[in-house]
Amino acid sequence: MNHADWVQKELKELGRSLGFRYTPLQEIEHRLARVRDGMRKDGIEALLVVQKMDFYYLSGTTQDGLLFVPLEGKPLLMIKRELERAKVESPIENVVALNSNREIPSLIKGYCGNLPHSLGLELDVLPVKDYFRLQDLFPEASLMDASLIYRDVRKIKTPFEIDLMRAAAKIGHKVYLEAREILEEGMTEIQFAGLLEAVAKRYGHEGLLRVRSLNYEAYSWHVLSGSSGGIVSQSDSPMGGLGLSPAFPVGASLKVIKAHEPILVDFGTCYHGYQVDETRMFSIGKMGQKFIDAYHACREIHDAALEEVRPGADCEAIFIKILQLAEKLGYKESYLGPPGLQTRFIAHGVGLELNELPFIAQGHSYPLEERMTFAIEPKIVFPGEGSVGIENTVVVTRSGYEILTNVGQDIFEGRILH
Amino acid sequence: MNHADWVQKELKELGRSLGFRYTPLQEIEHRLARVRDGMRKDGIEALLVVQKMDFYYLSGTTQDGLLFVPLEGKPLLMIKRELERAKVESPIENVVALNSNREIPSLIKGYCGNLPHSLGLELDVLPVKDYFRLQDLFPEASLMDASLIYRDVRKIKTPFEIDLMRAAAKIGHKVYLEAREILEEGMTEIQFAGLLEAVAKRYGHEGLLRVRSLNYEAYSWHVLSGSSGGIVSQSDSPMGGLGLSPAFPVGASLKVIKAHEPILVDFGTCYHGYQVDETRMFSIGKMGQKFIDAYHACREIHDAALEEVRPGADCEAIFIKILQLAEKLGYKESYLGPPGLQTRFIAHGVGLELNELPFIAQGHSYPLEERMTFAIEPKIVFPGEGSVGIENTVVVTRSGYEILTNVGQDIFEGRILH
Repeated sequence: MNHADWVQKELKELGRSLGFRYTPLQEIEHRLARVRDGMRKDGIEALLVVQKMDFYYLSGTTQDGLLFVPLEGKPLLMIKRELERAKVESPIENVVALNSNREIPSLIKGYCGNLPHSLGLELDVLPVKDYFRLQDLFPEASLMDASLIYRDVRKIKTPFEIDLMRAAAKIGHKVYLEAREILEEGMTEIQFAGLLEAVAKRYGHEGLLRVRSLNYEAYSWHVLSGSSGGIVSQSDSPMGGLGLSPAFPVGASLKVIKAHEPILVDFGTCYHGYQVDETRMFSIGKMGQKFIDAYHACREIHDAALEEVRPGADCEAIFIKILQLAEKLGYKESYLGPPGLQTRFIAHGVGLELNELPFIAQGHSYPLEERMTFAIEPKIVFPGEGSVGIENTVVVTRSGYEILTNVGQDIFEGRILH
Repeated sequence: MNHADWVQKELKELGRSLGFRYTPLQEIEHRLARVRDGMRKDGIEALLVVQKMDFYYLSGTTQDGLLFVPLEGKPLLMIKRELERAKVESPIENVVALNSNREIPSLIKGYCGNLPHSLGLELDVLPVKDYFRLQDLFPEASLMDASLIYRDVRKIKTPFEIDLMRAAAKIGHKVYLEAREILEEGMTEIQFAGLLEAVAKRYGHEGLLRVRSLNYEAYSWHVLSGSSGGIVSQSDSPMGGLGLSPAFPVGASLKVIKAHEPILVDFGTCYHGYQVDETRMFSIGKMGQKFIDAYHACREIHDAALEEVRPGADCEAIFIKILQLAEKLGYKESYLGPPGLQTRFIAHGVGLELNELPFIAQGHSYPLEERMTFAIEPKIVFPGEGSVGIENTVVVTRSGYEILTNVGQDIFEGRILH
């Protein structure tokens, strides 16, 4: 059997038998129609989709390549490696080999008959060198920024996407249940975190949490115990933890987990590229009353914020209202970070990337819409002592919200063994 | 105690007690001197270092910020978050808060007295939008590409860096020894891979393998059993594996590992940001003679290639000579990938990123130099059946080479339990 036949017959079936969900054509067509609405509004004649998650969103594959989307007519998928797999993974009809970027204009011209006068690119992430190369390849075209089109379309999830997020949440559910069996006094934070990741991977968790950014990285191994929870780092989050070294100064460290400490587990799970984000509290024996009280405040804040969630609600207004509640509850100095280092958001959009729209945050005055998905995470930080918090991934429904990450929210209190 | 004092006194010591190695000033000065040689050659008056690994290399911290490096005088570290941690992690003397990118020119002007006429940037990775913003902020400066300067300097490792790579290799050593205890018939590839990662993390492995690229990702969980090893994917490697979904079509899958299959474990380890890459073969019971023979050929190719490694040896010449050996040994059709999908490199530079210089590859005609580090990985692929290979991370010494990843190279043959 030749390679193409083998991939088409055996590999496709192998993937399916191991749980691969290929994106249906109808799903891609729906997404393309919405993207084209944005193109029309911005006066963009064609898109060249480069960035991995935009590319996956519109093609169904993450094989190495580029997608050309004209305003009218079918898109053209140009694949460097691996062509036959892309044909299996993507429902797009026109798939061609791309041996070198130099061929892009001739492939497009051969396909469309002419070259576009304007070409939309992801200028928020596209490297400058690639931009200059595209300027050389398309000397007649004006290169425009299309990044907001993608962000805008992708912020509303389809039922297909929400299903994948549900499946990611199911993995997270299992992780949090097994975490209770795994946690032991004397483990290091990173040891515990590594075991949680092993559990998650066993259930199909894809270990990389993608972020749309040159430098920003996210890690599943965000286990912070006791004083680690009071440490801030480069990440735009209420607490960063110590991390493993100056090269990874965020997340779990080699610190030993002790009895009676608050243990914050902020674990992201990824399935078919779709992420959910979730935080729960653990302790070995009882944690101090100060932390228990603060955790109950986080839950109150979390519930009060969700009470506001419905299509049409303004994101910034929710943030401000809830900030006032946190202050009223007595956490003005510790809500969302230690004094002077507090973050200004309580929820971030989540999907293929961890920093999608919407943000329930200061400066983000726009309405929530049905089928937006976000992770809401009120947290309270006591420098030098520890932190507590809760986080759930939520989908906006027609009249309110639904929590996808629905494992129990009580503090899990493990036994002291010695 | 105020925050700054607490970070300076307690957090610094906490990090040290948990194994943090802060980059010494002398090390940074040596690196800066080499970078400035490149600036002089290219006529660049100052650098603005943006990309996380270049930034870490020249500052010792990965807190969120930018580094300004004038041709003469001391550099200026501008930190968004977290300022006090950056002061602890970096030996750079001048560290200031950066609240917004708009402040960059005034901070530089305040520091130097004037603005540079040319500013070197990482145009290979810097997003276009950021470039346009910098054009607005530095209207008088010509923005030049400095990416080759970093790549060129970073390709030669200092003894300090090689020590960190040795420490990464020690973690990998433990992983491969414990892997022998963990492997069991009936596990899935990803289950085995997840457990290996848990072991590695327990010893301080930093779970993200960094790659200098918009879209290219690397994963530690590269466990391919039997037919999975014959599958090519988007990665520029001889085999990609099935992966977990179309969103992660590389590496371990949910396929069950069976007795007598060749099991290829390609596991990268990271310590203080420094990576080593390593591949070993496993089986449960004996693997087929075809695979054993091919593995011996890989070892012969690996050893023959290393025989050529010394300062001054031409990278492309080594690649071509070794290609001929692979053909002579009867693997013309399967060496470095299946027919038509073969890769054209046998080694890639490794350090803070997985795609550093040098490449022992077609089209890479330049000499090896002392203290270059690379991962050499001859692999043989049989589509539909499986693959074998060996990989070691190597440092070029004054007269030859030293293997950093020195766990035993024999096939590990586990027992069939039932």
